[in-house]
Amino acid sequence: MNKRGVIEYSNVGNLLDNVPVVKTDGDEVFESLFDKQGIKIERIVSNGQCSPDDFWYDQEQEEWVFLIKGSASLEIKDDKTPTSTRMIDLVPGSYVQIPAHLKHRVAKTDTTQQTIWLALFFPSSKLN
Amino acid sequence: MNKRGVIEYSNVGNLLDNVPVVKTDGDEVFESLFDKQGIKIERIVSNGQCSPDDFWYDQEQEEWVFLIKGSASLEIKDDKTPTSTRMIDLVPGSYVQIPAHLKHRVAKTDTTQQTIWLALFFPSSKLN
Repeated sequence: MNKRGVIEYSNVGNLLDNVPVVKTDGDEVFESLFDKQGIKIERIVSNGQCSPDDFWYDQEQEEWVFLIKGSASLEIKDDKTPTSTRMIDLVPGSYVQIPAHLKHRVAKTDTTQQTIWLALFFPSSKLN
Repeated sequence: MNKRGVIEYSNVGNLLDNVPVVKTDGDEVFESLFDKQGIKIERIVSNGQCSPDDFWYDQEQEEWVFLIKGSASLEIKDDKTPTSTRMIDLVPGSYVQIPAHLKHRVAKTDTTQQTIWLALFFPSSKLN
């Protein structure tokens, strides 16, 4: 976007096109679609990757994640029940809103096809 | 979300489930998934609806729209070229970032199936 608010080509696309090839023994690919003043939109492509055992994301930002293609499971560690975790299985169309500092990890992603995520991040300070 | 940041069931769902039945002679359905401090996430279901002729959205907010299912066309009126418009055809996976005050309208939506959109709105004042 330029200052006159004109749409440019980078502002239009398809998240199912030009999907990077991610191998099961390689790294996930994160691509920024939008990043201004702490509001971020990313496409993430996975192929069997998951968080290390006992690794937990603990983010400053609020996250809203949507699964476009493939499958995955998110594990949530809830402050209310610290001795247990909750598993959320995601299929195409699934979304999860993850409040800031809610501990979570990617327990698994599909190993038979690429998984495509849309992830949104907002500053939690604007939300509280 | 409550104050302890615990995930509640309303924060988890699937946008391909419980899709409201929209008829071609009825109204589109807008459902709020998230709405805090001007950051909004909506699911929109259309079935052949489009903007009236010569109607143009002119929004205070920045919008980022993603097409999950179906098809649609957005028409953009660009300040740089006021005597012509630009048509953007959307299929599943397509996204368009629409800056605040960029005039646009829904020129058409699929008449053979329901079209499901994911729309994000941010206050533009936080982005400039």
